[in-house]
Amino acid sequence: MSDGGLAAVRIVLVEPLYGGNVGSICRAMVNMGLSELYLVAPRVKDWDEARRMARHAFSVLENRQVRATLDEAVGDCVAVAGTTALGGLYRQHAQTPRDCAPELLARTSSGPVALVFGREDRGLTNEESARCSHLLRIPSGEAYASLNLAQAVMICVYELFTASGTYVPPVEKSALAPDKLRERMFGIWREMLLEIGFMEPGKADHMMQGIRRALYRGAVTEDDVNLLMGVARQSLWAARNRGAS
Amino acid sequence: MSDGGLAAVRIVLVEPLYGGNVGSICRAMVNMGLSELYLVAPRVKDWDEARRMARHAFSVLENRQVRATLDEAVGDCVAVAGTTALGGLYRQHAQTPRDCAPELLARTSSGPVALVFGREDRGLTNEESARCSHLLRIPSGEAYASLNLAQAVMICVYELFTASGTYVPPVEKSALAPDKLRERMFGIWREMLLEIGFMEPGKADHMMQGIRRALYRGAVTEDDVNLLMGVARQSLWAARNRGAS
Repeated sequence: MSDGGLAAVRIVLVEPLYGGNVGSICRAMVNMGLSELYLVAPRVKDWDEARRMARHAFSVLENRQVRATLDEAVGDCVAVAGTTALGGLYRQHAQTPRDCAPELLARTSSGPVALVFGREDRGLTNEESARCSHLLRIPSGEAYASLNLAQAVMICVYELFTASGTYVPPVEKSALAPDKLRERMFGIWREMLLEIGFMEPGKADHMMQGIRRALYRGAVTEDDVNLLMGVARQSLWAARNRGAS
Repeated sequence: MSDGGLAAVRIVLVEPLYGGNVGSICRAMVNMGLSELYLVAPRVKDWDEARRMARHAFSVLENRQVRATLDEAVGDCVAVAGTTALGGLYRQHAQTPRDCAPELLARTSSGPVALVFGREDRGLTNEESARCSHLLRIPSGEAYASLNLAQAVMICVYELFTASGTYVPPVEKSALAPDKLRERMFGIWREMLLEIGFMEPGKADHMMQGIRRALYRGAVTEDDVNLLMGVARQSLWAARNRGAS
């Protein structure tokens, strides 16, 4: 049993070739709350490039586990999700990462879950795909369907992170404006627009419909209303006092 | 007016520094059905690295437009969506790319829509963020929230591509098995499991519950059922004929 959640998700790279990809993947993992990286028989030569691309995700790179075979890298996992860009045998059953993410996360309550990515040049072999419990296929265009390895990992871990509900979106600091505050604002605008000669009294109702549409798109906060009310008040003051100076 | 859709989405990079990022972004764009790349005052030195990372998205790199200022790069756009990793002024209103994608796609029916990405080292300035009609913030973990530039672009264009409904998931070639076919399969399995001595008749009902759970997870196609039925038939045949050889 593991604690579950994102911490129990393992990224497994089979025979990765480019240090830049491995480093980018470390960064993507930490960006999305993961930390466990397994490399199967890595062919990487340029580890400096890996360190450079990992940036502040250096510890994931340093703590990587290296195994000789895929079996050794995923033997203890309760789910093994392989990724594929291809159709063909066994691969008709591929799901999108978005569709599969909730189930993979749910499995983490029973043990580690592996996401397995193939070689930059040849992906996973048929045998490797066949031993996976789940197959993932990232939606992409037909003109050029093959994603860079690090980009493919990013989309998968992003979908897991999103499905985990970890992310708390920034909150609008200002509350949404109640109806009566908005109406007071439009009242002051009407008064101002008449005073400055922007509209004739006979056309005010019609013009105010346009003003409402222009100022009142989507959610409007109290801060928004106070700002717009301030503009109208100041304009009203300036119009009434312009001759007095 | 443009044709709209993904073809009307423009990726704008403000003062990008690394050729590898620019090339990776070209590839990500073509992966997700985009082709229009604008660079604002690029600082890239290593264009060979850009070409290397672009791979088969070379034409996007070659056809890039270069502008001296952000104004020139987005002046004709009906929506300008800036990306930010930070909170703070103006940025409380940031949406996730997933939430914003449908609206941005809808706008493409009126003209080009720009997705604007800041510098690798400093993002967008406050002034640049303030002139955007939309602000996007990619969900990420608090430990290390800053994504690599190419990774950030990938997530945004992936969300647009997904929202566009362009992707057609691979179809299960075999139809889902109807209930009566599945029941026939379980009937043959029951017969076989009794014949080979796997279970006693008195415990068959109970054992078959376990067998059903093991063989019948989620959707089961006709191909699956035919395969499993073949296994049972063969085992039955072998059990009945083993003494006959």
